[in-house]
Amino acid sequence: MSLWFKDKPGIVNVGLASFADSARECGARVTQLEWQPPAEGDREAGMALARLVGAAQVEQANEQAYAAYLNAQPALVGVGVAREAVPGLQGRRIAHAGPPIAWLEMCGPMQGAILGACLLEGWARDLDEAERLARSGGIAFSPCHDHGAVGPMAGVISPSMPVWIVENAVGGARCFSNMNEGLGKVLRFGANGTEVIERLRWMAETLGPALATALQRTGPIELKPLVAQALHMGDEVHNRNAAASGLLLKRLLPALVESGLPGDIVGAAVRFVAGNDHTFLNLSMAACKSMLDAAHGVAGSSMVTAMARNGVRFGIRLSGTGDSWFEADAPQVDGLYFSGYGPGDAAGDLGDSAITETAGLGGFAMAAAPAIVQFVGGTPADAVATTQSMRHITLGRNTAFTLPALNFAGTPAGIDARKVLDTGIPPVINTGIAHKQAGIGQIGAGVTAAPLACFIQAVWALDARLNA
Amino acid sequence: MSLWFKDKPGIVNVGLASFADSARECGARVTQLEWQPPAEGDREAGMALARLVGAAQVEQANEQAYAAYLNAQPALVGVGVAREAVPGLQGRRIAHAGPPIAWLEMCGPMQGAILGACLLEGWARDLDEAERLARSGGIAFSPCHDHGAVGPMAGVISPSMPVWIVENAVGGARCFSNMNEGLGKVLRFGANGTEVIERLRWMAETLGPALATALQRTGPIELKPLVAQALHMGDEVHNRNAAASGLLLKRLLPALVESGLPGDIVGAAVRFVAGNDHTFLNLSMAACKSMLDAAHGVAGSSMVTAMARNGVRFGIRLSGTGDSWFEADAPQVDGLYFSGYGPGDAAGDLGDSAITETAGLGGFAMAAAPAIVQFVGGTPADAVATTQSMRHITLGRNTAFTLPALNFAGTPAGIDARKVLDTGIPPVINTGIAHKQAGIGQIGAGVTAAPLACFIQAVWALDARLNA
Repeated sequence: MSLWFKDKPGIVNVGLASFADSARECGARVTQLEWQPPAEGDREAGMALARLVGAAQVEQANEQAYAAYLNAQPALVGVGVAREAVPGLQGRRIAHAGPPIAWLEMCGPMQGAILGACLLEGWARDLDEAERLARSGGIAFSPCHDHGAVGPMAGVISPSMPVWIVENAVGGARCFSNMNEGLGKVLRFGANGTEVIERLRWMAETLGPALATALQRTGPIELKPLVAQALHMGDEVHNRNAAASGLLLKRLLPALVESGLPGDIVGAAVRFVAGNDHTFLNLSMAACKSMLDAAHGVAGSSMVTAMARNGVRFGIRLSGTGDSWFEADAPQVDGLYFSGYGPGDAAGDLGDSAITETAGLGGFAMAAAPAIVQFVGGTPADAVATTQSMRHITLGRNTAFTLPALNFAGTPAGIDARKVLDTGIPPVINTGIAHKQAGIGQIGAGVTAAPLACFIQAVWALDARLNA
Repeated sequence: MSLWFKDKPGIVNVGLASFADSARECGARVTQLEWQPPAEGDREAGMALARLVGAAQVEQANEQAYAAYLNAQPALVGVGVAREAVPGLQGRRIAHAGPPIAWLEMCGPMQGAILGACLLEGWARDLDEAERLARSGGIAFSPCHDHGAVGPMAGVISPSMPVWIVENAVGGARCFSNMNEGLGKVLRFGANGTEVIERLRWMAETLGPALATALQRTGPIELKPLVAQALHMGDEVHNRNAAASGLLLKRLLPALVESGLPGDIVGAAVRFVAGNDHTFLNLSMAACKSMLDAAHGVAGSSMVTAMARNGVRFGIRLSGTGDSWFEADAPQVDGLYFSGYGPGDAAGDLGDSAITETAGLGGFAMAAAPAIVQFVGGTPADAVATTQSMRHITLGRNTAFTLPALNFAGTPAGIDARKVLDTGIPPVINTGIAHKQAGIGQIGAGVTAAPLACFIQAVWALDARLNA
């Protein structure tokens, strides 16, 4: 305080800036302090937050959860068929991105992807029949996360699809993701035309088995070192996976070429994987889920272990609150649109890919990927600032994932729901933008923020478990 | 000046800092101006420089040369055998890195590499016989640059070696480089044991033809877009080529796999190329030479079109002074040594790879490769500062090669020998460090600077041509 009274008294204004303006007009020296009440001013949430901040049980639980996240060693161990590899994904069931949602509530791209999956599975002869089947309740839907899986955008996984199998060497837990189809007309953006279904069939019948054969030759491929290298090569492994996909290719291709498979199969597989800079996205997501699954289920922990969107609702899970989803309306994505499209064409935020941010990558590692700002808007300085701001809401830095632009500091990781509420800083997410109608595809990319309302509910629920 | 006399008089000291210290001790306000006389205080060179700075003929010539450099479009068009593809590399002739040098003067790694090449060519049955042959004058030696070629480190190219063929789509001029052998015991560091020669033989008989076949399928591969992408992925395409090598691999491998070549040949080629993060170095060098060759031979131009070292002498060429080399002793490299080695073990600066810096890449593009500072010593901030300092000695920025860390500014390019002398700032070069004895290999990596003495001579020579 002595500083303030050294010359003559000044004013510090906290909160609404208009108070400061009035005082300034009267000639007073005013310093405006950026502040807003925690928990968005919600009294009940604020009280819950006050009980959880500094609580020894929460601190210890977070330490344990965060250590498990840091120690996880996800490795790509194989490629399988969903119905055989993924728990619970049998019969007429389709897994989708985000929290649970009913057919009629789903956004266009998700409905489109599900109809395509019905054709792929042979449950319907055409899209009309598929839609009648879906409407009639003839298909069971569940979140990918309920099956230990993740999928980008619509995130649709049906029983016959090939899946990457990722295993945490610490404890052996497995998780799964579908395989990336590339850009353009693809199922994850809701496209379901003949070329899409034929590509999916080829992926199931040819690509998946070929990659499975290659992986038997390579043995398990540790994914954290690949991510770490890619972060030094301009990827943040969410919106940009060019380096990581190349690194994976270098590991897989010699084994593929030497697999003894027919040349045309190897050639087509090589061309497909080499031609898709997003190949690694689905593996990045599975690796992140593997690390976060390790942190999940620690009683009392306020660490966020999943963020996922179904295009209508945004949901999060905490380590200490079991499998409950805490949801809010999916936000619109602030970004750059491809020529001819605008915000009015966009579906709400969509996909399980926010699992990368939950694990300290994607938007949290934006400083690693200055070139991405050309794609999502902004400057390289913004990218660094984004990463630095995430430091305020995270439990630590993951030194397995270092960021050259920050002098090799680790990426901020382990979102603490308490800190999100306390600071009002939402987790930032890099993402693609899907057209709201099925089948049109990606129309842009940008940055979005997790809704604070999810964190309010999560903190309530954690407080209820600990202090009820 | 008004600024200086606003309060009370102050002192600006130019040059030796000790004068400023004395004045400061007496209580004076002293501003020390960093300055040293141009041309290292060499009066004759300073006079020559004075005649060339601002000379309309030089400015116009530099504009023309720099535009030709910017406009060049080097593409990888094929792989050939040196004796067939490279002008003048027939008979018992071996090309080497740097300016011309006689057998007895050569450094250990270069002699070792030449002896290995004699075995590869079948000119000798063992190393002793090869050495007698070399000593006796039975082999002709010439710089790679005299054959339109470049090679890293010892840079040895003998007639039966496979070479990358790079063609400038603007004008059709060709240049060449040898192929990268990987790390460890390799000819370019002077190793010449059985495994080295066998690998070179396999490269000549199997790898080269296989890649030639693949390139016939792909057609020409433009190299500037690959370099531009790699600069956004942490490479500076001299000491670090991990991303660029991966990008090249993605272009070549599908064609290789679908070439119809036997599976074991394709498998071995894929494994070799995928296992070598330096594959692209030799292509980066050839692409840079192609761009600089386009700028070469403009009368009056002070633009540097080659910097190259033979381990004993460092040489440069200017666009406006023909094929003359301006030489000085090769400097030692300031860098990080592998465990067990130190500066006393190092050969002098070696290799044609400084062609990358001459073209605005390598050390000039250090800002693109913050991760490299872990390898050569320094911090990411140093990397940015290095790039920025090269702005003082270059003709412009090459916007084909943008640097994310500098908000996508182009890399500084087109070294102006006048500016080097005028500022006393030498071009910086990222490089590997070879052991001074043949066959031991790489013992470190670091940063070195081109000797100013080369630029003094070059400016003299240009002045003599223009003002004699």
